[in-house]
Amino acid sequence: MQAALRVYNTLSRAKEDFNPLAPPFVGMYVCGPTVYNFVHLGNCRTFTSFDIVYRYLTHLGYRVRYVRNITDVGHLVGDADEGEDKIAKKARLENLEPMEVVQRYTNNFHQVMAQLNNLPPSIEPTATGHLLEQIEMVQSILANGLAYVANGSVYFDVHKYRQQHAYGQLSGRVVDELQANSRELDGQAEKRNPEDFALWKNASPEHIMRWHSPWGVGFPGWHLECSAMSSKYLGQTFDIHGGGMDLKFPHHECEIAQSVGHCGHEPVRYWMHANMLTVNGARMSKSAGNGILPVELFTGQHPLLEQAYSPMTFRYALLQTHYRSTMDISNEALKAAQKAYRRLMNGLRAAKLLQYPADLSGPAEVQAATATETEQLVAAVYAGMNDDFNTAVALAALLEMLKKINSLHNQQVPLAHYSQASFEQLRNTFVTFVEQVFGLRDETSSDLPQMLEVMLGIYRQAKQNKNYGQVDELRTRFRQLGIVVKDMKDRIDWAYEE
Amino acid sequence: MQAALRVYNTLSRAKEDFNPLAPPFVGMYVCGPTVYNFVHLGNCRTFTSFDIVYRYLTHLGYRVRYVRNITDVGHLVGDADEGEDKIAKKARLENLEPMEVVQRYTNNFHQVMAQLNNLPPSIEPTATGHLLEQIEMVQSILANGLAYVANGSVYFDVHKYRQQHAYGQLSGRVVDELQANSRELDGQAEKRNPEDFALWKNASPEHIMRWHSPWGVGFPGWHLECSAMSSKYLGQTFDIHGGGMDLKFPHHECEIAQSVGHCGHEPVRYWMHANMLTVNGARMSKSAGNGILPVELFTGQHPLLEQAYSPMTFRYALLQTHYRSTMDISNEALKAAQKAYRRLMNGLRAAKLLQYPADLSGPAEVQAATATETEQLVAAVYAGMNDDFNTAVALAALLEMLKKINSLHNQQVPLAHYSQASFEQLRNTFVTFVEQVFGLRDETSSDLPQMLEVMLGIYRQAKQNKNYGQVDELRTRFRQLGIVVKDMKDRIDWAYEE
Repeated sequence: MQAALRVYNTLSRAKEDFNPLAPPFVGMYVCGPTVYNFVHLGNCRTFTSFDIVYRYLTHLGYRVRYVRNITDVGHLVGDADEGEDKIAKKARLENLEPMEVVQRYTNNFHQVMAQLNNLPPSIEPTATGHLLEQIEMVQSILANGLAYVANGSVYFDVHKYRQQHAYGQLSGRVVDELQANSRELDGQAEKRNPEDFALWKNASPEHIMRWHSPWGVGFPGWHLECSAMSSKYLGQTFDIHGGGMDLKFPHHECEIAQSVGHCGHEPVRYWMHANMLTVNGARMSKSAGNGILPVELFTGQHPLLEQAYSPMTFRYALLQTHYRSTMDISNEALKAAQKAYRRLMNGLRAAKLLQYPADLSGPAEVQAATATETEQLVAAVYAGMNDDFNTAVALAALLEMLKKINSLHNQQVPLAHYSQASFEQLRNTFVTFVEQVFGLRDETSSDLPQMLEVMLGIYRQAKQNKNYGQVDELRTRFRQLGIVVKDMKDRIDWAYEE
Repeated sequence: MQAALRVYNTLSRAKEDFNPLAPPFVGMYVCGPTVYNFVHLGNCRTFTSFDIVYRYLTHLGYRVRYVRNITDVGHLVGDADEGEDKIAKKARLENLEPMEVVQRYTNNFHQVMAQLNNLPPSIEPTATGHLLEQIEMVQSILANGLAYVANGSVYFDVHKYRQQHAYGQLSGRVVDELQANSRELDGQAEKRNPEDFALWKNASPEHIMRWHSPWGVGFPGWHLECSAMSSKYLGQTFDIHGGGMDLKFPHHECEIAQSVGHCGHEPVRYWMHANMLTVNGARMSKSAGNGILPVELFTGQHPLLEQAYSPMTFRYALLQTHYRSTMDISNEALKAAQKAYRRLMNGLRAAKLLQYPADLSGPAEVQAATATETEQLVAAVYAGMNDDFNTAVALAALLEMLKKINSLHNQQVPLAHYSQASFEQLRNTFVTFVEQVFGLRDETSSDLPQMLEVMLGIYRQAKQNKNYGQVDELRTRFRQLGIVVKDMKDRIDWAYEE
């Protein structure tokens, strides 16, 4: 029924059929955070996008090994080969051991990922946990003649590499740009050519994160860890490499060069990049005052926010946009997402309550029509996801299914209009996509339903006793809790206020 | 007011005054889990015991750097120098990459630690993250003549070490025992003496966790990581080293030898060991069928358990026993702990509700008496904790405070019997110790209070309307939720059923 999955490959700039190297196995590597600060909301978008890729591939039956690293050394303040290590700088400012900084922000990162209901990756390797692997890769690139040693540092020889291989294909940069990007700063003088980049850096005496290597005491270049760890856990060629769009250059371009320099061929079959998150149309930045942290979003404690927006509201908002499009958040957009998310959760509960009676029979013609309709809706959901994980399209189809489910739940449409098979296809696809693929969960506490049951019992009794004063009062009190009580023909129902 | 803290030092077999190396800083290293399986309930006792040590030292004003490692390589099945790596074995059985095993059980460990409300350590280093540091330490011990290379492995020369240093002091083992403990198994033939232990092991071809070293491809010995990581993050001498009692030999004995072999002096000022957890009087073991996992305890899904016991119930039970005593869990003991924990939580809520009116005055003599009494209770709490972190004694004193708080809350004793200063000393000590030092938290969801408020509103109105039928019905329904409603003179109060 479902068309094949197609994935947009940044390298070819085209959607390609997804053919993993060794199905049913899929290897996926995603560049994780540099843990020197609270995780950025833009990064949350990237990680949630790839969580949904992971979930959908798993849903399709692939056995995915998902590796997402933690950068705990080597990422310098200038995002290039100069400046202080980002973590060491934070450690100096906060008077901590660098690994205390790493621990603190790794904990925060994990907390936010759990709040957003992102699944933990299969392996979460750290850069400091793979120094030997990185050193070996540098040795191999040196042996292949594509790197050189200078003052205890080792640089990748981009100039020489370009004589044999393409460089800049992923990002589309040309070498003039590359050179223009390089500034004459600390360490630049050691390079033979300005476009070269560090594989291993000699540590100055004040550099506290340092290890012994064949070239003296130093630390790895930022780009190296991802090449070393992806090849260790996924092999020298693997299926998917993901990350934020800003990592295309220099980070991913350097990864390709390192892998080719090490083993002679490109490492990745499908390069995927998530687009940016903007706030009220503007790029997030600290200096602009619009850099919203997850905790600020979830509590509403930020001058730009009119209220708190829950993790699931944010996740829902992310789903509304395809991962390759720019996504803007604003109070209007988030409020709309909150409303739509709650509607979906009410539908989820309704879908789970619906039971198809064993002896139900209905008009064959009507059932044939709903069967076709259901097939089309299910196909539309998969078509969206198969078109480069287009959650926006899949979600729209899912909202059509929601309408059908609500009609059944409200008894506007009798269940007998569906065959059992069609009904179950409708319900199961809906529930599976909401919970398993989109990773949305009901945020209300587990105690709430039990408590509500007790209160609804009181409400029912008040109605039976025709104590309308109390009925009205109870309805008011329910509303204070954000809950709307609905009197149905044969029962009392409730829903979150939308 | 408070006496000085005294700590039982396993090495001296005596309680000693606690004098850290460089106050207010304290360095504490605790041996963490080997992540090849779900964390064991006995380990949870150890980690919770040291969480309370960490919390109390912090409460006393120390700035503690708390390092607790993750063993992700090198711990062999035989707990000695033979057999398969525990993680690699699990990986083979589950058909996973070893680091997938590590990730899975590290996630489980973190989840359980969070459920038990154990604070994350300052640094949580991994063995694979410190291979270079371990290799360097081996090189140093070799250079000092206390190790030898054999077939690509490096062994610590215990025989030679004993000619210069004491060995076995921590565990009280004598060398005959050490030798008797060593079996003639794989790798033993390489050793010069049976009591020697591996610093680095040559990897056989089927051994998948392997790294390059100066001695060939291999992996570190289990004991090495703790010496390398503790000295890296806490220095060559540090204050506290903790772990389970079963680690005294060989693990901690080997750590001492490695550190002395590396830098010439003992690494640790205070060795602390937590005692074992037994079930119905018997040592836990898989083969005996009494090995209860945290998840089984928290859900009640185990043949030996009559019901579920929450994480805080278990934590409370742990507090009732001094960490150096054997602790037994049984249904009786856990039910009693559950009851007592709930009583304490009701007291916590009561304590937070109590307000001392600005204009209150009371009889000076009575206030003087309660002041003395309060001073004594506070002193008793600190005396317990200062006596080698005896939480059992401190908790008993805290329960005396609870009685006082309940009397005030129930208005059996008027607040005016306390001066404002005494009242605040009573309340603040109680709240601080329950929450901050003992790390107990109210397990009910955050939604409950709001919901309860609404239900109590209905209850109040029913009482006002003298609708006694409804009042009774509401009381019954509250009880279904485990909540008891209390009619006070001037207000309606509630408490968890105890």
